[in-house]
Amino acid sequence: MSVRRRHLLAGGALAGAGAAAGALAFRGDEPAALAAVDTGTAIVPFHGVRQAGVATDPPAHASFVAFTLPAGTDRRQLGRLMRLLSDDAARLTQGAPALGDTDAALALLPARLTITFGFGPGLYEAAGVPSPVKALPSFAIDRLEARWSGGDLLIQICADDALTVAHAQRMLVKDARPFGAVRWVQTGFRRSPGVQPTGFTQRNVLGQLDGTANPTGDALDAAVWAPDGSTTLVVRRIRAEIEKWDLLSVADKENAVGRRMDTGAPFSGAKEHDEPDFAALDANGLPVMPDYAHVTRAHVTDPALKILRRPYNYDGAPNAVGHPDSGLVFASYQRSIERQYVPIQQRLAERDLLNEWITPIGSAVFAVPPGCAPDGWIGAEVLG
Amino acid sequence: MSVRRRHLLAGGALAGAGAAAGALAFRGDEPAALAAVDTGTAIVPFHGVRQAGVATDPPAHASFVAFTLPAGTDRRQLGRLMRLLSDDAARLTQGAPALGDTDAALALLPARLTITFGFGPGLYEAAGVPSPVKALPSFAIDRLEARWSGGDLLIQICADDALTVAHAQRMLVKDARPFGAVRWVQTGFRRSPGVQPTGFTQRNVLGQLDGTANPTGDALDAAVWAPDGSTTLVVRRIRAEIEKWDLLSVADKENAVGRRMDTGAPFSGAKEHDEPDFAALDANGLPVMPDYAHVTRAHVTDPALKILRRPYNYDGAPNAVGHPDSGLVFASYQRSIERQYVPIQQRLAERDLLNEWITPIGSAVFAVPPGCAPDGWIGAEVLG
Repeated sequence: MSVRRRHLLAGGALAGAGAAAGALAFRGDEPAALAAVDTGTAIVPFHGVRQAGVATDPPAHASFVAFTLPAGTDRRQLGRLMRLLSDDAARLTQGAPALGDTDAALALLPARLTITFGFGPGLYEAAGVPSPVKALPSFAIDRLEARWSGGDLLIQICADDALTVAHAQRMLVKDARPFGAVRWVQTGFRRSPGVQPTGFTQRNVLGQLDGTANPTGDALDAAVWAPDGSTTLVVRRIRAEIEKWDLLSVADKENAVGRRMDTGAPFSGAKEHDEPDFAALDANGLPVMPDYAHVTRAHVTDPALKILRRPYNYDGAPNAVGHPDSGLVFASYQRSIERQYVPIQQRLAERDLLNEWITPIGSAVFAVPPGCAPDGWIGAEVLG
Repeated sequence: MSVRRRHLLAGGALAGAGAAAGALAFRGDEPAALAAVDTGTAIVPFHGVRQAGVATDPPAHASFVAFTLPAGTDRRQLGRLMRLLSDDAARLTQGAPALGDTDAALALLPARLTITFGFGPGLYEAAGVPSPVKALPSFAIDRLEARWSGGDLLIQICADDALTVAHAQRMLVKDARPFGAVRWVQTGFRRSPGVQPTGFTQRNVLGQLDGTANPTGDALDAAVWAPDGSTTLVVRRIRAEIEKWDLLSVADKENAVGRRMDTGAPFSGAKEHDEPDFAALDANGLPVMPDYAHVTRAHVTDPALKILRRPYNYDGAPNAVGHPDSGLVFASYQRSIERQYVPIQQRLAERDLLNEWITPIGSAVFAVPPGCAPDGWIGAEVLG
């Protein structure tokens, strides 16, 4: 098919949703290499019983944008806001520009863009409805900073391309800002598309394979989703104390985690996904899996009580003396924060050796309402 | 080949350079999908007459790290620093850990990592050698901030993966910081691997196709490289005034640029790479290519006087009222800053309509010394 022919087809397709295939017409006059742009044109459906961006295999880039609602915000305003943002999200995720977009070409390569909305306790209060989530209890390890904590509304923007995330954020923030102030923004990254095969566990900035114990399949469904399609989200900003971590030997690091750094295998096993054996004893009669190791403290036996970790790395500018500003934008999804996340975090706070090298500096909780049908909008059950 | 067999092979390969093929052994126990990880294992040679990261097709992520040397730094110290950094770069770019790396697994997917060194005027002064570069003249449009300007030593780190860039930066800064203070760090992004075909012009945060006029082939060689393999680098932080840009129609935007926003074609042509015709007149006898348009002001006819633009987008956190912090980490390579970059920038500063929507807020210049052989180090001609 000639470029001109594709251009004409694209012009028509742009009138509606699903316009990503038309994006090629916007790349100038070079012969197109269709196969190479699959990553750019890949689409994740927006509409459905559950919001996208939760069980979706996490793309390479994410931005978490939290807003503070001004005093006096009411349910009607929130309904207008969520109708507007749902419309933006429905278009942008499908590779079509938002209605007010004067840089439409930047919307045409969605690269698996997902836009996921979370409601903080303050939003429910403004709406006059009981909140399904409440702030986490304090943990002894917390060194929380207000600039990374709390929030009434969250927009989680994920895609395999950073420019796509930036443009979607620009559009969504422009539409949301008349309704509330930007409270914090946390951006993060995982491996770029094609750097690791899909589904493989990725390393974090400390070099650990992170997410090995995530539930999959039916277990994921049971752990994450309520029957109405809702879930909950915990966002924690976890600073990595790289300066101290750099002083450890590999054996020290493994001792803190309870897994081999290279393979991710637990001390009691040989492979990453071997189930840790907490009853195993070594030649001296001591547990092979130390009680203080991260994997021991975080372990959950009941599949329904697991959490779905969906962490992103962050790496800010090092300071003048060259100390990194690195860590995790830890995000976990679970049906119940109280029954699933809190007990794990309490066990970790109590005696996880890894606490010596990580510090929680931000914390926020959000209810994630169900998805919506093409004629609906996110939050209609609460705000409609 | 079994995973175990590859693991054994990889173990051997890790002892030397070129270890990226061994990276698979560090991904746990899952069956490997070799084809899918080409992006991660791709290697750009470090050694050669010219440094990598200049004519190299720009990867998706970049970090520019500038250092200030303390008073009293001498040539001998600089030689030690550059021997150390050259060794780190030679290893990291080939997918092998730096010597002091206790998180070796993070070094094994180089994803086209390049590490390029630039020397600012202050480094030459410290070494007691005349500097081949000097600070730019002031331009009327400049609103330069010290926190994004100047620098005695620059490390440009580019790769197709953000975690690879972060880890290389961690290793390089750790080794450089005893010799100097981190002055500024600017990170930026382009399209992720696979989102657009290689070699296609990419859009920037303003939606423009950016880099259409770049020299290629022999013209690139003539414009960029001195016979000894050296070149020069200008880094400018250019803030995009998104709030004002958003008020423009597409026609207004095209008028400022002199090209169509969708195809990138100049007003006088039909396709992106059509040479603009500055003599063409419209029905009213006015130039088709307006004198104030960005493409008119930036145009260079003599191929040897062109510059190689290698820009990255940045997107910081929007402020509380939701205004974006976006723009370009503009980087250009050219044989001579005075003869090539400065005249272009003077014409732009004088009358580029686009100046209404962009503001230079940072500026730095660096000489880029020649590359080195496997038994050499970057900067030996000056510091050896």
